[in-house]
Amino acid sequence: MQRSPLALPFPDLAPIAGVRIGTASVAYKNWTRDCVTLVELAPGTVVAGVTTQSKCPSPEVELCRAKLPGGRARGLIVNAGNSNAFTGMAGRAAAQAQAAKLAEVLGCDAAHVFSASTGVIGVPLPVDLALEGVSKAHAALGQADFLAATKAIGTTDTFPKAATSSAIVGGRRVTLNGIVKGSGMIAPDMATMLGFIFCDAAITAELWQAMLSAAVGPTFNSITVDSDTSTSDTVLAFATGGAGHAVLTSMDDPGADALAAALADLCRQLAILVVRDGEGAQKLIEVTVTGAVDDASAKRVAMSIANSPLLKTAIAGGDANWGRVVMAVGKAGEPAERDLLSIRFGDTLVASRGAVVPGYDEAPVAAHLAGQEIRIGVDLGLGSGRARVWTCDLTHGYISINADYRS
Amino acid sequence: MQRSPLALPFPDLAPIAGVRIGTASVAYKNWTRDCVTLVELAPGTVVAGVTTQSKCPSPEVELCRAKLPGGRARGLIVNAGNSNAFTGMAGRAAAQAQAAKLAEVLGCDAAHVFSASTGVIGVPLPVDLALEGVSKAHAALGQADFLAATKAIGTTDTFPKAATSSAIVGGRRVTLNGIVKGSGMIAPDMATMLGFIFCDAAITAELWQAMLSAAVGPTFNSITVDSDTSTSDTVLAFATGGAGHAVLTSMDDPGADALAAALADLCRQLAILVVRDGEGAQKLIEVTVTGAVDDASAKRVAMSIANSPLLKTAIAGGDANWGRVVMAVGKAGEPAERDLLSIRFGDTLVASRGAVVPGYDEAPVAAHLAGQEIRIGVDLGLGSGRARVWTCDLTHGYISINADYRS
Repeated sequence: MQRSPLALPFPDLAPIAGVRIGTASVAYKNWTRDCVTLVELAPGTVVAGVTTQSKCPSPEVELCRAKLPGGRARGLIVNAGNSNAFTGMAGRAAAQAQAAKLAEVLGCDAAHVFSASTGVIGVPLPVDLALEGVSKAHAALGQADFLAATKAIGTTDTFPKAATSSAIVGGRRVTLNGIVKGSGMIAPDMATMLGFIFCDAAITAELWQAMLSAAVGPTFNSITVDSDTSTSDTVLAFATGGAGHAVLTSMDDPGADALAAALADLCRQLAILVVRDGEGAQKLIEVTVTGAVDDASAKRVAMSIANSPLLKTAIAGGDANWGRVVMAVGKAGEPAERDLLSIRFGDTLVASRGAVVPGYDEAPVAAHLAGQEIRIGVDLGLGSGRARVWTCDLTHGYISINADYRS
Repeated sequence: MQRSPLALPFPDLAPIAGVRIGTASVAYKNWTRDCVTLVELAPGTVVAGVTTQSKCPSPEVELCRAKLPGGRARGLIVNAGNSNAFTGMAGRAAAQAQAAKLAEVLGCDAAHVFSASTGVIGVPLPVDLALEGVSKAHAALGQADFLAATKAIGTTDTFPKAATSSAIVGGRRVTLNGIVKGSGMIAPDMATMLGFIFCDAAITAELWQAMLSAAVGPTFNSITVDSDTSTSDTVLAFATGGAGHAVLTSMDDPGADALAAALADLCRQLAILVVRDGEGAQKLIEVTVTGAVDDASAKRVAMSIANSPLLKTAIAGGDANWGRVVMAVGKAGEPAERDLLSIRFGDTLVASRGAVVPGYDEAPVAAHLAGQEIRIGVDLGLGSGRARVWTCDLTHGYISINADYRS
């Protein structure tokens, strides 16, 4: 797979105290690269998570949902190449056996190990390979870095996606590293996305979950590649406590705001990286809707635009077809008044009050659309609701990738 | 544009008493073909209609909405090549001027003429050309047949789409002819679709509207090409009374059932023709959902499947990727139980009770997917709700058509 033209370089990621990584290769697919990632987390690590809203989730997602309320984590296993979704009893048994094996090698409670799988749907995870993966990756603990882990969790990804941020809490620097995979089946509610965040903050599980839950709305839940929602999407955030500051227990504690902001920033970076690797993407599109009756309405309008195949193909063709923006606003079903609508491409006002602006000059718009980072602004003129979402263009590459994914 | 491989031959359409057609060429685009269609309807003709649910409709749609309650029609004008949507005061003035001109040449009340425009959004319909179109098409009245009209209303259509049906009412044969255009921006709520139905039944406007409103749900509102909804969609049905039977006033009148059934059959034929001309379509896909908690829920699940780019690209690739059906069921947000779900491709049961069937043999499924007419069946196992919708596959052709539509 050709590297996305929107790829960013892999960032420098500092080690996180309390996080050890091992990766391994097993034969889920005919890949020679590593496809199993094991992370050992120091005792006392807390975990927060958000999973897909699909009604047909994978067994791994079900296990995460069951264990997250406990708030404690000692280990994580990630399988790439097989999502284990919709695999009935066999898949559930395989997921449970792998989790049990992970708890065994780490010497911890099975309630404290988390798992995620990504890849083709409908083929039970082969239990022998799943167990072999745990053993081999555990034997390699400490030999892999975040780059190796990022590569090992990928499937159709064309570049390894990671980000970092930091905050000062109680006089100590807290580091947050995030790794993410996903490029198709990306929609709000987590898409075919796996994201893992590692942080050395000391924090209660409840507060950490509250920070993560607040962060995902304007970040992971504000991206779409193709409007499809996966059965496997999972974001897990681990905080090891290794930074050594006093445990944060409430948003009123000094430094809690800074940590929440750093987490939100990290999630935003990771979410946009996923769009930058959208299947077939040639352009990153940021859609900002203002003037809606409220923020939720603005987001639905923004998503209607960001999910429109006609708008996304127009952008692919560098075509300033703002009529398709009107169409997408009109179909959103949200309060909108044609004659109050204004539309911008980049910094250029294209349409205002229900019609093209007088003397409209397409040249600056065409220049903007020739770039890789496209901004579309819509003002509904009704209220103060606003939202920003990200998507990518829809190209021949998307068709090529998805018309023969399994073969 | 290459003719769709799913095209059907143009049917034999009998003349309809009370319907006269003229077509003309004007310079909305650099086309040499006719792009204005004028239909004169006999005095006493009743009209029923359904328009887009877009919040940003075209002026023509607004005019139709305003006039439909009157229930009477003497004329219709259709412009192809310019949708006149989102064109502010200039567009509204052009639509009104054209309608006034049509009433003038037909010698009727302006409340009894209907108009529709289709094509690019955002460019006001040039009023001089709009008036020229009325004059030229009126001068040609009686010289065009339904085939000529079907060709003249098309834009990106690759074949002329029409259908016919009939019923016996009061001992007379009633004929219904329908013509339709549309291939992209097709979704429920009428899409970029224009449909015109001509019938010689004698019927009250109220009963005719009731029959049409009942017919569109399982037909025009059960198709999708790309989930996009147009600003211009309109279906108008005219009944001239020329068949000479006693006027139908209620569904209890003899023959009313037969006419309603013929109208529903006609709408179904026309709707599927639109999908057969879906932009880039290589395969027609029929999605049937059963076992839902109710019919509305079944339809939302069916549309979630029919709108999934991942499912549609898989079908394009002849890939029996039923995992993407599971994904689309899961994302619909409707009641569903993974472990009660079963899936069929063609006549083959692929998955049952949450997993692939034992000994699953992909060969008959692959053979089915190699054909042009694909059937996907999903049983949710929850209740007796059911729905059937139609879509097409998503191919490179869709991207090619839409990435450079305006150029």
